[in-house]
Amino acid sequence: MFTFANRHFSLSTTLTIGFVAVILLGALLLTLPIATVKGIESSFVIALFTSTSATCVTGLTLVETGTYWSFFGQFVIMMLSEIGGLGFMTFMVLMFTTSRRKLRLSTQLLAQESLNLQHLSQIKLVRLIVGLSLGIQGGGAVLLFCDFLPKYGFWRGLWYSVFHAVSAFCNAGFSLFDESVSIFKHDTYLLFVLGIMILCGSVGFLVWRDLLTYHKRHTLSLHTKLSLRTGAIIFIASLILYTLTERGFNSIDPDATIFQKFSNILFMAVTPRTAGLITFDYGHLSMAGIFLTMMLMFIGGTPGSTAGGVKSTTIGLLAVQTWATLRGRHDVNFSNRRFPRENIYRALTLIIVAFSIITIATFVLCMTQPLNKEMGLEYIIFEVLAAFGTTGISLGLTAHLTLVGKIVIMLMMFIGRVGIFNVMYTVLNAKNHQDDFRYPEEGVLIG
Amino acid sequence: MFTFANRHFSLSTTLTIGFVAVILLGALLLTLPIATVKGIESSFVIALFTSTSATCVTGLTLVETGTYWSFFGQFVIMMLSEIGGLGFMTFMVLMFTTSRRKLRLSTQLLAQESLNLQHLSQIKLVRLIVGLSLGIQGGGAVLLFCDFLPKYGFWRGLWYSVFHAVSAFCNAGFSLFDESVSIFKHDTYLLFVLGIMILCGSVGFLVWRDLLTYHKRHTLSLHTKLSLRTGAIIFIASLILYTLTERGFNSIDPDATIFQKFSNILFMAVTPRTAGLITFDYGHLSMAGIFLTMMLMFIGGTPGSTAGGVKSTTIGLLAVQTWATLRGRHDVNFSNRRFPRENIYRALTLIIVAFSIITIATFVLCMTQPLNKEMGLEYIIFEVLAAFGTTGISLGLTAHLTLVGKIVIMLMMFIGRVGIFNVMYTVLNAKNHQDDFRYPEEGVLIG
Ligand SMILES: [K+]
Ligand SMILES: [K+]
Repeated sequence: MFTFANRHFSLSTTLTIGFVAVILLGALLLTLPIATVKGIESSFVIALFTSTSATCVTGLTLVETGTYWSFFGQFVIMMLSEIGGLGFMTFMVLMFTTSRRKLRLSTQLLAQESLNLQHLSQIKLVRLIVGLSLGIQGGGAVLLFCDFLPKYGFWRGLWYSVFHAVSAFCNAGFSLFDESVSIFKHDTYLLFVLGIMILCGSVGFLVWRDLLTYHKRHTLSLHTKLSLRTGAIIFIASLILYTLTERGFNSIDPDATIFQKFSNILFMAVTPRTAGLITFDYGHLSMAGIFLTMMLMFIGGTPGSTAGGVKSTTIGLLAVQTWATLRGRHDVNFSNRRFPRENIYRALTLIIVAFSIITIATFVLCMTQPLNKEMGLEYIIFEVLAAFGTTGISLGLTAHLTLVGKIVIMLMMFIGRVGIFNVMYTVLNAKNHQDDFRYPEEGVLIG
Repeated sequence: MFTFANRHFSLSTTLTIGFVAVILLGALLLTLPIATVKGIESSFVIALFTSTSATCVTGLTLVETGTYWSFFGQFVIMMLSEIGGLGFMTFMVLMFTTSRRKLRLSTQLLAQESLNLQHLSQIKLVRLIVGLSLGIQGGGAVLLFCDFLPKYGFWRGLWYSVFHAVSAFCNAGFSLFDESVSIFKHDTYLLFVLGIMILCGSVGFLVWRDLLTYHKRHTLSLHTKLSLRTGAIIFIASLILYTLTERGFNSIDPDATIFQKFSNILFMAVTPRTAGLITFDYGHLSMAGIFLTMMLMFIGGTPGSTAGGVKSTTIGLLAVQTWATLRGRHDVNFSNRRFPRENIYRALTLIIVAFSIITIATFVLCMTQPLNKEMGLEYIIFEVLAAFGTTGISLGLTAHLTLVGKIVIMLMMFIGRVGIFNVMYTVLNAKNHQDDFRYPEEGVLIG
């Protein structure tokens, strides 16, 4: 029994080491002279940072992607994003189905037994996910091409279309334009296409499977119900709150039409869920808008998607659980189902570890990072959350990072993408075990 | 069985409503003309804010305590602090012993069964706590008087001694001097006396009882062991980290002697654990020092003490639990004992709710509070944490608070002092219950 359980731990190790290997390979390719426009060797730190940011689909950059990297360099970045986004998703399918079939009774930590995956085999599911993802990216590229062709000509327009289709779907946050996609802030069609692709990427394979097989099964799993409901609530809440904090986008772009303002706020509500493509400098946001963005970056998308953060299901489950606890209830119910204790336990632990890691990273940056007078703590916390949530929006600190700061941000991107549990299990060489001997219980006073 | 369990919930209500009553009574007394130096009626908002701050032993102030309030006003503030500090502690004894004796089997939320209170009856314990607290405050007042007598003469010195003894022991954070106790920053004796009193107050009744009956029992409860160990680690860590962040106090007071610098750093390590007496303007701290102080305010002291925050046992338990989870262990052990699941569950929920409340309060303040150019997000978060942790240190925002801001800060002080669970149970009118019908379990994907 323990062998099966530990198979999950070894998959964690495979994933973690696989990501390290891809990042290093990417960094080597980006140090090649042909990777830069000027044809010179890039410093290893810049190459490593860019490779980490691309593979971890974050989008934080030390140099402008469009003007620093050559076509070869940009192609490497795109492929790293695709591996980081799609590769990760398919690996999660493997991990998920393995743990589901073999861990049924063995582990308390991974309570994925009841997710009902019986309707599709592993191979079929992987094929479905890959096909669907490539299909969406292809379709998206065509839609982007319609907009880019007249502006940039055939070849340039084609490359821009493919690159940004991958970047949007994989929630990678890289852009070939100056200041992300801010030159298109009045191009409602483009924002709409990008927004839809970002949403498609951040939905996750379990939700896709459920939606695509709904005509056969006529039921949604609890996971899908919780994901969709939480996602919808967060989306609507952020729409309303951003409208309030930025006074209907008037404080950022007063000259835009009402429709353009609305599409920008729509895009604002979508992008902090780890997409990272932005239509204006986030340094111009109000303090409340900055704080709201931090929260959204922290939450992120759905597990098993291209998105980062602590994930919407985690937040949704904890909201339901907290409400139940405060009402004095023992069972945590949602949509006529009861959450297993182990599931709640895992979500709670995830949040605590996430907070701890963010706290340590913030403290180290505070210690090592010289700040201008007008830069408050929000510059540091925002950067850390953008890395951890693999969102990749910055208030402007990235270019000023010291070497220690760069290392911290790279580590945060890595942990944010690979997942706290996967990294920790690997680093700590954890084994799933239950000692034969147990100590007697004794409680302490809490709160 | 449910009747016994619900007795705990009704005690929560009593405590919450009791605090509201004391605060309102205090506010009424402080609006009397004789409460101010000028003999004029104070505005109700100032009186209410001061009364809340005193009763919740926080120490955030809109006006200078020493120059705005008359002797009568100051006496009211001192009595409110005493009720908030000592009264709360004795009420906790009542709550604790009641839940222990009657809830043995009934509630999962309050796992205090195994705390071993059999050696002292409720009455004896209350008498012990009250006697000890008044004894420490009396002794402290005498020690302070030795210092104040030559400086301020008999009556003035006496009043200063009594007031600051109460303020230190109750972790109230009020001071009659300009800028807290910063005129005494080179008075090592005084800082030492105040520091010891602050520590005595933040230790909590369960630890006191254990230490005082140790000669009879020759064993410490798990609660005491965890409290002392966590407290010691946090204390040593903050000593080292403050020495690093403030470069041995050189960046704040370069003219002080080595010994004075060390005693100031010692005081710095003690005071954010919700005491709130400070020896310099915290606006001069480095960003790393500010962030560290935020963390310490968030953690606070020991449950069942005069201190606020989420409490040291909560943090200690979660540290042990997180480590066990990341190592793949099922049992959470400490000092040859296993923590009950319910205990961990309660700690996790407490942290999540605390974070949620802090987030909402921060967002509301960001929305409503006009900030100067040089004020970053840290001004707001610091203020919110100082209120929630009932620490009462401010970077300077308190005086600038809008009406909405004042209300938010008052609510945070109240929740911080009375306790999240007590307030929530009351507001939500919670009953401890287990439904007869249970839904089937189904898991979701986390992280
Ligand atoms: K991103
Ligand atoms: K205080």
